[in-house]
Amino acid sequence: MAEPLWSGRLGQGMSETLQRLSVSVPYDQRLYREDIACSRAHLQALERAGVVTHQEREQLDAALDALRQEMDAGTFSWDESLEDVHSNIERALIARLGDVAKKLHTGRSRNDQVATDTRLFLRAAIDEILAQVYRLRAVLIQRAREEAATVFPGFTHLQSAQPVTFGHHLLAYEAMLTRDCGRLRDCRARLNQCPLGAGALAGNTYGLDRQLTSSLLGFASPMENSLDAVADRDYILEFLSAASVVMVHLSRLGEEVVLWMTPAFGLITLPDELTTGSSIMPQKKNPDMAELVRAKSGRVFGALVTLLTVMKGQPLAYNRDNQEDKEPLFDTIDTLLLVLPATQAIAASLCVNRERAIELAAAGFATATDLADHLVRGGMPFREAHERVGGLVRACLDKGCTLEQLTCHDMEQALGIVDDQMAHVVTLSGSLQARDHLGGTAPSQVHAAAEKAELRLQRERNPGATAQDTPPCG
Amino acid sequence: MAEPLWSGRLGQGMSETLQRLSVSVPYDQRLYREDIACSRAHLQALERAGVVTHQEREQLDAALDALRQEMDAGTFSWDESLEDVHSNIERALIARLGDVAKKLHTGRSRNDQVATDTRLFLRAAIDEILAQVYRLRAVLIQRAREEAATVFPGFTHLQSAQPVTFGHHLLAYEAMLTRDCGRLRDCRARLNQCPLGAGALAGNTYGLDRQLTSSLLGFASPMENSLDAVADRDYILEFLSAASVVMVHLSRLGEEVVLWMTPAFGLITLPDELTTGSSIMPQKKNPDMAELVRAKSGRVFGALVTLLTVMKGQPLAYNRDNQEDKEPLFDTIDTLLLVLPATQAIAASLCVNRERAIELAAAGFATATDLADHLVRGGMPFREAHERVGGLVRACLDKGCTLEQLTCHDMEQALGIVDDQMAHVVTLSGSLQARDHLGGTAPSQVHAAAEKAELRLQRERNPGATAQDTPPCG
Amino acid sequence: MAEPLWSGRLGQGMSETLQRLSVSVPYDQRLYREDIACSRAHLQALERAGVVTHQEREQLDAALDALRQEMDAGTFSWDESLEDVHSNIERALIARLGDVAKKLHTGRSRNDQVATDTRLFLRAAIDEILAQVYRLRAVLIQRAREEAATVFPGFTHLQSAQPVTFGHHLLAYEAMLTRDCGRLRDCRARLNQCPLGAGALAGNTYGLDRQLTSSLLGFASPMENSLDAVADRDYILEFLSAASVVMVHLSRLGEEVVLWMTPAFGLITLPDELTTGSSIMPQKKNPDMAELVRAKSGRVFGALVTLLTVMKGQPLAYNRDNQEDKEPLFDTIDTLLLVLPATQAIAASLCVNRERAIELAAAGFATATDLADHLVRGGMPFREAHERVGGLVRACLDKGCTLEQLTCHDMEQALGIVDDQMAHVVTLSGSLQARDHLGGTAPSQVHAAAEKAELRLQRERNPGATAQDTPPCG
Amino acid sequence: MAEPLWSGRLGQGMSETLQRLSVSVPYDQRLYREDIACSRAHLQALERAGVVTHQEREQLDAALDALRQEMDAGTFSWDESLEDVHSNIERALIARLGDVAKKLHTGRSRNDQVATDTRLFLRAAIDEILAQVYRLRAVLIQRAREEAATVFPGFTHLQSAQPVTFGHHLLAYEAMLTRDCGRLRDCRARLNQCPLGAGALAGNTYGLDRQLTSSLLGFASPMENSLDAVADRDYILEFLSAASVVMVHLSRLGEEVVLWMTPAFGLITLPDELTTGSSIMPQKKNPDMAELVRAKSGRVFGALVTLLTVMKGQPLAYNRDNQEDKEPLFDTIDTLLLVLPATQAIAASLCVNRERAIELAAAGFATATDLADHLVRGGMPFREAHERVGGLVRACLDKGCTLEQLTCHDMEQALGIVDDQMAHVVTLSGSLQARDHLGGTAPSQVHAAAEKAELRLQRERNPGATAQDTPPCG
Repeated sequence: MAEPLWSGRLGQGMSETLQRLSVSVPYDQRLYREDIACSRAHLQALERAGVVTHQEREQLDAALDALRQEMDAGTFSWDESLEDVHSNIERALIARLGDVAKKLHTGRSRNDQVATDTRLFLRAAIDEILAQVYRLRAVLIQRAREEAATVFPGFTHLQSAQPVTFGHHLLAYEAMLTRDCGRLRDCRARLNQCPLGAGALAGNTYGLDRQLTSSLLGFASPMENSLDAVADRDYILEFLSAASVVMVHLSRLGEEVVLWMTPAFGLITLPDELTTGSSIMPQKKNPDMAELVRAKSGRVFGALVTLLTVMKGQPLAYNRDNQEDKEPLFDTIDTLLLVLPATQAIAASLCVNRERAIELAAAGFATATDLADHLVRGGMPFREAHERVGGLVRACLDKGCTLEQLTCHDMEQALGIVDDQMAHVVTLSGSLQARDHLGGTAPSQVHAAAEKAELRLQRERNPGATAQDTPPCG
Repeated sequence: MAEPLWSGRLGQGMSETLQRLSVSVPYDQRLYREDIACSRAHLQALERAGVVTHQEREQLDAALDALRQEMDAGTFSWDESLEDVHSNIERALIARLGDVAKKLHTGRSRNDQVATDTRLFLRAAIDEILAQVYRLRAVLIQRAREEAATVFPGFTHLQSAQPVTFGHHLLAYEAMLTRDCGRLRDCRARLNQCPLGAGALAGNTYGLDRQLTSSLLGFASPMENSLDAVADRDYILEFLSAASVVMVHLSRLGEEVVLWMTPAFGLITLPDELTTGSSIMPQKKNPDMAELVRAKSGRVFGALVTLLTVMKGQPLAYNRDNQEDKEPLFDTIDTLLLVLPATQAIAASLCVNRERAIELAAAGFATATDLADHLVRGGMPFREAHERVGGLVRACLDKGCTLEQLTCHDMEQALGIVDDQMAHVVTLSGSLQARDHLGGTAPSQVHAAAEKAELRLQRERNPGATAQDTPPCG
Repeated sequence: MAEPLWSGRLGQGMSETLQRLSVSVPYDQRLYREDIACSRAHLQALERAGVVTHQEREQLDAALDALRQEMDAGTFSWDESLEDVHSNIERALIARLGDVAKKLHTGRSRNDQVATDTRLFLRAAIDEILAQVYRLRAVLIQRAREEAATVFPGFTHLQSAQPVTFGHHLLAYEAMLTRDCGRLRDCRARLNQCPLGAGALAGNTYGLDRQLTSSLLGFASPMENSLDAVADRDYILEFLSAASVVMVHLSRLGEEVVLWMTPAFGLITLPDELTTGSSIMPQKKNPDMAELVRAKSGRVFGALVTLLTVMKGQPLAYNRDNQEDKEPLFDTIDTLLLVLPATQAIAASLCVNRERAIELAAAGFATATDLADHLVRGGMPFREAHERVGGLVRACLDKGCTLEQLTCHDMEQALGIVDDQMAHVVTLSGSLQARDHLGGTAPSQVHAAAEKAELRLQRERNPGATAQDTPPCG
Repeated sequence: MAEPLWSGRLGQGMSETLQRLSVSVPYDQRLYREDIACSRAHLQALERAGVVTHQEREQLDAALDALRQEMDAGTFSWDESLEDVHSNIERALIARLGDVAKKLHTGRSRNDQVATDTRLFLRAAIDEILAQVYRLRAVLIQRAREEAATVFPGFTHLQSAQPVTFGHHLLAYEAMLTRDCGRLRDCRARLNQCPLGAGALAGNTYGLDRQLTSSLLGFASPMENSLDAVADRDYILEFLSAASVVMVHLSRLGEEVVLWMTPAFGLITLPDELTTGSSIMPQKKNPDMAELVRAKSGRVFGALVTLLTVMKGQPLAYNRDNQEDKEPLFDTIDTLLLVLPATQAIAASLCVNRERAIELAAAGFATATDLADHLVRGGMPFREAHERVGGLVRACLDKGCTLEQLTCHDMEQALGIVDDQMAHVVTLSGSLQARDHLGGTAPSQVHAAAEKAELRLQRERNPGATAQDTPPCG
């Protein structure tokens, strides 16, 4: 076993049981880029504080860069007995450069170091995730334009409710994802503060220029309280929460795709390459992709619960418990980066079976509200209109006919009133066109909404003058 | 059993089992103010659309106002057989005004209605919660000023790490709560859109002026997609997430108060009226308040899991499942409004036992890092200094003395070097003053940080020119 | 404010904030029967230990009984300022009987008292819940008998997979619920130990006969460690876990009922009184009951997370955090007692639309596996048969026909082989009958399985000789 | 990309996005032993059903055995493009044996196959976990014997409550873990049923002898409903629940170890090899091991929430969502097998600082209850005794003395009564000895309890005549 970074005080090394329990290299090595970027910024502060010379800094800088290249290339040999990514890098530096490398850890602790690394990592991950959500929204907007007038059954309680257009339905998801982007950007902005310089918990004694390291790493500012800087993980909790809501939204679309693809609904077709077969049933064409998108919400919710549990009731400042933040974080990032492209592929390629959509949209007396509304416009109080049309529906059920198939005579008998617009009012197109207002399902509104969504998406993708800082270690 | 709002179509009333399962009046009656405000705004849109006359609107308006007063006064008699708050109010109106009241529900559905009510309710609740968090932050800042120079043990792994000031420690919580306020305000801003006019799912057929109702209710704008407006509950999930992080923070302070009050730590005293005794042990003075603050994190995390579970995989648009959003929401609001004042009381009145704090801050060789840092400033690489001081600590342990008790001779022997500053470097005040940088624990920094926090808090409390909209139904 | 039970040591009463935070009477008054039963058993131990005389015990016993009757009748006036149910009862006793009542709390603490009360309460609740699950299983078995030969589409991935019988499908739920009963009974058996006598944490000094109180309260034995007796809540966690699995199972049935009732599936009809309508859409008939059964899984999972969070990392022995165990427990019990009868009603009254079931069972080439199996029985390796039949299905899709509609010529061309059984093999009844083995879907197997399930249920309901103890305070 | 097992029906392979989403080989390859054992049992049923000849079975059997050896040796080359462990094994067989290998998948589906594999895997894992919990209990019992008379402070609310013995405290954990073992064994017994033969969902058409395969694999019986056999994952939920409760218990001990090791408590010492140091603070000796034991509760609770979420509301029978069961299961097993040995190491080697323990046990008037009890035994009602002793404690606080330091005169003044036993009653040993009853903390009771625990543990480890079945693929 390699010697840990703190061999001075304790008489012996760790027991093997403790080592197995506490090793984090297998997963935290993912932070090596951020850890090296963080060390390079720290070196500049050390030089400014006179702890290392310019020459020493350049020497260490070059060695760190070389390490990063080896790690990128996969040729670096990680040593699990060295606990974590920080120790691996520091030991490698010492092995190569000797005493000068022992200066690197001056004025910092693994506590502020890992907090900085993780913030850098998550910041870059959010940018990647945002790019994928933007892409998904672009797909939804594009499809919504194409399907702005496509009749589709609108459900409540999964029962026929009112006809909508498929474009309108897709834009509902675009709206949800727009708020998700807002949450992710808020999280990114809030986490973009630099813990470096906080030391183990109380600050450092070298007067390190925290503004400098913060700027070098692209942070908006240094964190203002050193205890807070090493102790809190609320930025990860906020991310996991935002990710959970993203997964709620995607799971709903996943569920709908599964439903729409059933023979019973028969509303959409997916291309073969986005489906799977069965090892036993030769006829199967399964929506596994949508099922997995739906199911993977579980692991993201689980990650959130994991970290909430870990953080609850911890006394300040740093406790080893915090090490348990990384796996739920990484798994959630990976999950989003898997399911978002999958959802893009589904949304881009699903094909609506228009006839079946019309058939289902017309089923279940979905335009009954339109008829009631029509009566109201003629002066009848809504509750009364609601009751009379309810009675008419029951009459249809008894006769086995649809609203459109009713004769004027039937209508008059059941409603006590009839006029020449009623026949149009109960058609699908009549119903759609009647909802011609902001947020309504009328095709013209869907076109307008898609236009507006497109512009908003462009603004979000290119915030322009108020450009976001670029992650220096992407 | 009273007749439900939808008696036309279905032959019989609900079975008793279904009624017991589905009744929501016992809890959703809390929404009556919002429901009535929502109806009054809707009436203006109905008048503008020509569905009700000016006179009818005034009549309904007055009756709604009267209902609200009765409900405020507790004299309204709620009927559980009428499912929910909406039905109770509508039935009462019909009972009083007859046919004209049947017009109220024109062009809306309980789906957009309840979404609007809930957003109004949560918006007001967030304002109340924010006021309480601001108050807690004010207490922490005030106490931090008073305790800016109070020596306090700083822990990592709950072991003596480095001395801090108690003011610095308190400001760590203030920093966490500042981010919490940001999250709550972001949530408030994002939810502040009006679902009204979305109808059951597809919009309405009366061309209701959605901009009008949105403005009347103080919303920033109408929601842009009717399906989204009735189907999503992400605003509640976002709130429950933000609330969970608040509870993480408070649970940590709760845990610390419990620890500090133990005879073993003995760091603080709480006034008797904030503690409880035992029914069996006459000597007990228990920190129940802090324990409950800590424990109540559980129910808030649970509420979040509840709603994540409910929302996962729901097909659009509205499903009855969504009714399950209210109890976790209400319970979380109530919990925050219980624990925040409790935490204020604790923070305002806890009294640091200064001698014991100094004793514990000095224990465990908490200034060893300072000595290592001093050696580094003298030119020794940090890793080497760390090892030598580690050896010195072990020597102290063997001798049973503290760092301050070492003689120059001891130091020279163990470290191979000695100078005349070392004696000061290892004192508590030397250690505190050495961390004199942004975010550090030096008393002057704590004063500066408190000043800055105070200004920020004032800005947040009085956003000034960019005033927030006032909730119309507070 | 009334004086608490521990007024000796602390100078003042609780602050109002603390009072509001810590009051539990509004919910823990549900434990009054158990609390009184527990006190009455404790009195017998006190008499045996010589702490109270026989006469005193009788006096106290009668007063406790009178209190219980008042509480049953709703005439007892609960005082919220008296914290909890225990204090309310003890204060009332003292008010009525004076000094003798002050002897009751001898040798016990609220810590062992509340643990005993809760175990008694949960034990009775499990019995009630078990009775409801048994009833649901009886309904499922009865319906399975009736529907043992009813063709029903069997889905995997919600795609047509293989035909099953509806009875077989129902018995799948019966099997799940049978394991649920096992879990609930295991939980009941494990919790059935008596904490009384454990005192605050260390035991009592009166040599109270713990075997006596344990027996009087129907427990299997006293708990063997006093610290454990007051500190752990694993019995509630176990119950909440078992309840969560019950809810997983019911949520699946709820989901299926919602799906089956859609116009698209059209597989079942529910009677009107188990459905609801819409406040706006006159034609709606919504499966709210099934939706709520499904959704209420959320609150039960949430309750489990709540208590896991509360218990995590608590040092021994009792902490006030434990008070937070009651609301999640009570809510879960209430939820189960709501959803179980609802599910019984649904299961008992849903009516399969047989024609539609056959239609969907036949759709999607659901008997393709049967054909592949038939080829295998003729000597072809399964993987090859699977591929050939897959090709045949594709041919059907191209031709727009079903497997049953294929001619012998078609079959021979696609499969390279044909025989005179193939036509039967691909029929629904052929497919069902072919799965005539233990656990298979053939009607005869369903009958046999229902028979077996019935016998098992009877055994569970009447464990006979090894009768369970009767709860003394039901 | 390799061809999947279901290439017949679908025109093209999976898209790369879908492949990345759905691949499970990286984790489900852990099931290879179980998968091969399952195939070998299935082959016997196929031979008995006449699907394969004896010779064919032997040939396949040998090839499967060879595969297993390669996999054991790590020389098998897994192909991620082949989705899962089942496909990898089947493809390898076909590559080696040709057509005969294509017969293996006859009469089964991956649905019943993976359910069988997972049950076998979990059954073996539970046995391993049980062995570790037994070992931990043995350590606790052994330590309890050694520390049966060691005075230790007993806390409630983390305040001094009553003195206990350290052995008594350790046995509280032993009692919790005993119930945990019961839960794990119940889970094992309930899951020990064989899904094989259930096919995709409806059974198989070959009349496979399910009793045979069940016996060969060491199951108690075949599962009785084929839909249930492939659809449910309650056995994993039950395991994750039991594991969560184990983690609650271990997290409490972890928390206590952290507290006890603080300089303030100073109650125990851990050997250096079970602690870690700091990268910056040379003096640190940190209880990371205990912190990680505590923190890892988070991931286990998270795993439970993950799978509850995945299973909620799934329609029957198999959905791809179920694939998400494996990672939370594996991670939980691994976690338990990490933290249990760690806790054994801690429990075996922690050393109580006896003087400090006595000091803290005596602090805080921990024997006040004893004095009150003594007054009661003298005839005073408990509530009155409680109040008087409370007043006495306050007097001590004012005087700055302990109960033991009070003079007879002080006592008489404050209590209105004094006798010659009081001085003994308020000593630690007097207090411990007074709790000499089943479950009490008196040293003799601790010895007796340890004895009893030892016998019970032996019985559980060697259930004797009613020996458990041995897992055939361990």
